[in-house]
Amino acid sequence: MKPFLSEDFLLNTDVAKRLYHDYARDMPIIDYHCHLPSEEIADDVGFRNIGHLMLGGDHYKWRAMAVFGYDNEFIRTSGDRDRFFAYANAMPMMAGNPLYHWTHMELRRVFGITDVLSADTAQKIWDEANEKLKDKAFHARALIRRFNVRALCTTDDPADPLTHHRALERDAGFPVRVLPAFRPDKSINVDRDGFRDYIVKLSQESGVLISSAEDVIAALEKRIGYFHDCGCRLSDHALDTVPFTGPDDGKADQAFRRAMDGHRPDHEAAEHYRTKLLVALGEIYSRRGWVQQYHIGALRNVNSRLYGKFGPDTGFDANTDAPVGMNLAGLLDAQERKGVLPKTILYSLNPAANYTLATIAGCFQGGTPGKIQFGSAWWFCDQHDGMTEQMKALSSIGLISQFVGMLTDSRSFTSYPRHEYFRRIFCDILGGWVERGEYPDDEQALEKIVRGVCYSNAKDYFDFGLTD
Amino acid sequence: MKPFLSEDFLLNTDVAKRLYHDYARDMPIIDYHCHLPSEEIADDVGFRNIGHLMLGGDHYKWRAMAVFGYDNEFIRTSGDRDRFFAYANAMPMMAGNPLYHWTHMELRRVFGITDVLSADTAQKIWDEANEKLKDKAFHARALIRRFNVRALCTTDDPADPLTHHRALERDAGFPVRVLPAFRPDKSINVDRDGFRDYIVKLSQESGVLISSAEDVIAALEKRIGYFHDCGCRLSDHALDTVPFTGPDDGKADQAFRRAMDGHRPDHEAAEHYRTKLLVALGEIYSRRGWVQQYHIGALRNVNSRLYGKFGPDTGFDANTDAPVGMNLAGLLDAQERKGVLPKTILYSLNPAANYTLATIAGCFQGGTPGKIQFGSAWWFCDQHDGMTEQMKALSSIGLISQFVGMLTDSRSFTSYPRHEYFRRIFCDILGGWVERGEYPDDEQALEKIVRGVCYSNAKDYFDFGLTD
Amino acid sequence: MKPFLSEDFLLNTDVAKRLYHDYARDMPIIDYHCHLPSEEIADDVGFRNIGHLMLGGDHYKWRAMAVFGYDNEFIRTSGDRDRFFAYANAMPMMAGNPLYHWTHMELRRVFGITDVLSADTAQKIWDEANEKLKDKAFHARALIRRFNVRALCTTDDPADPLTHHRALERDAGFPVRVLPAFRPDKSINVDRDGFRDYIVKLSQESGVLISSAEDVIAALEKRIGYFHDCGCRLSDHALDTVPFTGPDDGKADQAFRRAMDGHRPDHEAAEHYRTKLLVALGEIYSRRGWVQQYHIGALRNVNSRLYGKFGPDTGFDANTDAPVGMNLAGLLDAQERKGVLPKTILYSLNPAANYTLATIAGCFQGGTPGKIQFGSAWWFCDQHDGMTEQMKALSSIGLISQFVGMLTDSRSFTSYPRHEYFRRIFCDILGGWVERGEYPDDEQALEKIVRGVCYSNAKDYFDFGLTD
Repeated sequence: MKPFLSEDFLLNTDVAKRLYHDYARDMPIIDYHCHLPSEEIADDVGFRNIGHLMLGGDHYKWRAMAVFGYDNEFIRTSGDRDRFFAYANAMPMMAGNPLYHWTHMELRRVFGITDVLSADTAQKIWDEANEKLKDKAFHARALIRRFNVRALCTTDDPADPLTHHRALERDAGFPVRVLPAFRPDKSINVDRDGFRDYIVKLSQESGVLISSAEDVIAALEKRIGYFHDCGCRLSDHALDTVPFTGPDDGKADQAFRRAMDGHRPDHEAAEHYRTKLLVALGEIYSRRGWVQQYHIGALRNVNSRLYGKFGPDTGFDANTDAPVGMNLAGLLDAQERKGVLPKTILYSLNPAANYTLATIAGCFQGGTPGKIQFGSAWWFCDQHDGMTEQMKALSSIGLISQFVGMLTDSRSFTSYPRHEYFRRIFCDILGGWVERGEYPDDEQALEKIVRGVCYSNAKDYFDFGLTD
Repeated sequence: MKPFLSEDFLLNTDVAKRLYHDYARDMPIIDYHCHLPSEEIADDVGFRNIGHLMLGGDHYKWRAMAVFGYDNEFIRTSGDRDRFFAYANAMPMMAGNPLYHWTHMELRRVFGITDVLSADTAQKIWDEANEKLKDKAFHARALIRRFNVRALCTTDDPADPLTHHRALERDAGFPVRVLPAFRPDKSINVDRDGFRDYIVKLSQESGVLISSAEDVIAALEKRIGYFHDCGCRLSDHALDTVPFTGPDDGKADQAFRRAMDGHRPDHEAAEHYRTKLLVALGEIYSRRGWVQQYHIGALRNVNSRLYGKFGPDTGFDANTDAPVGMNLAGLLDAQERKGVLPKTILYSLNPAANYTLATIAGCFQGGTPGKIQFGSAWWFCDQHDGMTEQMKALSSIGLISQFVGMLTDSRSFTSYPRHEYFRRIFCDILGGWVERGEYPDDEQALEKIVRGVCYSNAKDYFDFGLTD
Repeated sequence: MKPFLSEDFLLNTDVAKRLYHDYARDMPIIDYHCHLPSEEIADDVGFRNIGHLMLGGDHYKWRAMAVFGYDNEFIRTSGDRDRFFAYANAMPMMAGNPLYHWTHMELRRVFGITDVLSADTAQKIWDEANEKLKDKAFHARALIRRFNVRALCTTDDPADPLTHHRALERDAGFPVRVLPAFRPDKSINVDRDGFRDYIVKLSQESGVLISSAEDVIAALEKRIGYFHDCGCRLSDHALDTVPFTGPDDGKADQAFRRAMDGHRPDHEAAEHYRTKLLVALGEIYSRRGWVQQYHIGALRNVNSRLYGKFGPDTGFDANTDAPVGMNLAGLLDAQERKGVLPKTILYSLNPAANYTLATIAGCFQGGTPGKIQFGSAWWFCDQHDGMTEQMKALSSIGLISQFVGMLTDSRSFTSYPRHEYFRRIFCDILGGWVERGEYPDDEQALEKIVRGVCYSNAKDYFDFGLTD
């Protein structure tokens, strides 16, 4: 029996161990998609206690606590200490859930605490961690630096002035690049509440008078220019369903006008509008050398009662099994046809669509290594099985050697061990092939693949100007 | 090489063996969903021979015999002996199919026969088993008791008078609780043949004059009261597709009236009717403290020629890959919004929808351990791979420690070894985590998890009044 | 660590090794579905170099080269040498992709070259292989014979005169049966470009004046007779989506007439036409004792720009996740109802639909061993994981012992090692069951299963008249 969370955690063959310890472990991190608040980095915030740090905003943990039987009100609104002790109490019953690994990796890698969390150890860990948190070495910036992060990309609205990103770029004392990423969902979801107000805001921030779908694009293009100047090289789109039709300009404008008149446009017109915007944005990204990300297949705010109470991103989302292939193929083709398809990363929240995304990606390759990426396992899939399935599909259908690898997608400053988790799983897969005679023991090639997937592929793929 | 079906069958690590033999093996069984005929338990029926017992009503076996090449007429209508010998002859060619394991586990656990079934051993096994079947120790009740069953739930129509359940509850000589489960499909499928006749029957049995959708609900509520008095705490719905729209009361009634007029209501109106009933029933179940089960994704009576000949549940069903997420989310949300969502178990016949069901379940948790269950692998999925996939999805997305575990879903008195099968697979998964250092060797927590999933979670989840 | 591609490649247990080496390895091949050009066999063509042979028409390799970063123009139009060296250069970065295995198996089994392909070895391999290719022993026929192929089925249009097949059947010097397979897609896709021209051609070749859907069927039936006389016993349908509705004869004819008038029929009418033809053809195949193949779920020519440049089957296809179950069930049932459902093989390009296809197949069995086959992993799924998943689904749901096994589906004369690949994976699965005590070590049954799946099941299933 292997001890829990040992040095060789998740590494099941000698080759896997060698690949991880010799090549993967010490590679820097490019965390090209996360949800860290730039303000907290700029302010180098500290954390009042481990409950705040661990449970303040993590809906994965909240969901697990609810399954354990805690009340949703308690889970989301109780004090840091109560919440931490409740979580500790539930921890032993989280066997098999990724939280079990993530939590203990965070305790070890962030705090150096090797105790296993439970009701019995909660007080000791609470005290020990909180003592450490008083130190500057546990403030936001130090946490980021401890994990050898070279660059990270936050997720930002086009109307955001990026004040903190600008401050951070000027701050010589913090060498990590903190870059914005451009997420224009609010301007695309023409049939959601708040669209009209948002367009007003976008108009103000961009200085573009917006009275048509074309104007929305013009305003976004201006903001893309501004984001570009702030170092942004990456956009992100939440495509809960993948729109694709036409697009017919008249219908797109009709959807826009109806929404601005305070009505909900009909579904078909909205699809024309969405398609028009996505294709136009692809063209702009392409011209700028940006990468576009499509996050596909979320079913959001499923529990409308608790969503109404606690708001978005508080643990009431699921995935959808609605088909995506036909529309996704059409959407990418519409960009490719015009010769403006940018580098693109496709993420699936539905593992049953892995092959569909991977094979569609394979239709638009060429000219750039791994131009269209079948992206890392995302959200509910971001765990041992989900990551394994994503890497198996990617390697069976495409080339895992060209993979840009992991991102945290996280709101937490302590989630960088997920890169370690990913690297271990990846090295275990690759090492397994060698161990079983399915790939030769070619040290040079293996080193190149490992270093590529852990770091250098991302460095080459994203135009962040990193030099080593 | 491990001998076939040894003591450590399916247990691949030392920890798995320990967990199974020390904790899982001897736990009692709560078989909360099956299709045993209550009359046969009440009458304590015997079985004329092993062919009758094994092949009299098992469409899994019939399907496998057809793949082997036997004629459907022969498979479903020949004598017990011919059928048993034919099955024995095909047995060695069933490698890899769950029937291979189930059959031999039944021979061993029920009859103590360790021979491997084939044309060569058929006569010997036929004789030996039939000799034993003459004994009272092989009648219905003794079979149930042999497997340490504490409670079992049959599947019953709301119009059923539950005569046998009442008799069994009064029978001090049989300590196993035989409880009804409430399956109102016939009153919900407003667009299927026989609806009108069924409503007449329901009206008679409930004493409620039924002339609207509301009346159907009132009649069902009355029957729920009656079932509750008979110990029922569980309902079951076969949602071949998941309906969800509106519901608009007018359209629901329109569907009802059209059906009662002898016409088929249009699909949209039928969906309103179905949604209305499911939401209303959820509310009643919730008030009663019942658990509702949704069995999702069957495609029934696919072969209409042989269905016409042999009737339903004779081996001509499949699963469907039609999407279910959006509607299922809406249906649960409609109940949650009103604060009336009962404890619910979601079963998927399509393994590709595992993550969708598991993530949707995760949106409605809280207050009760494992309130919304992603249910055990069902029917075609109820085998080694399917169970493994279900448990992997459940543990990756939710908490397997809160799982209410296995049920037989069976028409046969000899299918209880499927609980053993499940327990072995579960212990193998859990033990594997410990063996590989993915969970600590925390004996106390492991015991709790194992005993919980095998028995105590179900005991706590279902309000059957079991005391230990 | 096992050496790369050793004798026991992919065989992970002693039983698996025994089964493969004792029974599987030397079985002959029936390659019942491929895309070899009959003309090249008739002419016994040679190959100008290994670049031509390996990369001349293989879109799997082209796609992988594009992911690596090569330009699509270069990949598809450069000279044999440049292309081969580029492929060699990318090879080490193809770890995990099936091409890595296929390429090295081809080098070994065809050329006896054990070097690992890379930029370093490209020149040596280029020289060595090309030297060998000068020899008649490396011409088309010798390659086929080297792999112990007894029969192969090409894929042919109904209007094809089958000149080369006729010549080959008369040629006593080549004992391998080269049979046509009947692929009438062009006459079924009434709403695709080129339909009208195709019908003219079909009319000419069949001698049937075609002015209705019925006439199309009559013309196809005549061609089926001709194909039958040429040894054909197998049809093939590319069902990118599965049509099923009605069929209403009037609507089917309306679609036909509209297409012949040079317009695109509406989708609904086209579905009636397609359904009518598929059901009618099933009836004809059934009468002839043929097997029909349904290849389900491709999403073709996704990249319309490069499709326009390079044409079909050049690497711009994907799979679709659109649901198929309901229609597929209806289509088979329409044939079964009339008692005319022929032996049928269902292939899925979407692994998420594996259970749906396998369970639907299970509804139409009986009378013939494995009458409805859940076919071998296809195209993007034709790799280690995909094959494993298909065999797991098949054995969990049906009987793998009755499986007709592997086909190459290939345009290349060197792809026969894929049968070896399949056999190793199959023996590894079967051997694993025995090793772990999940199936007894019954040598006789195991031999029968292995020889069946590798060869004799196909021999018995297809009416090719093979005698041993």
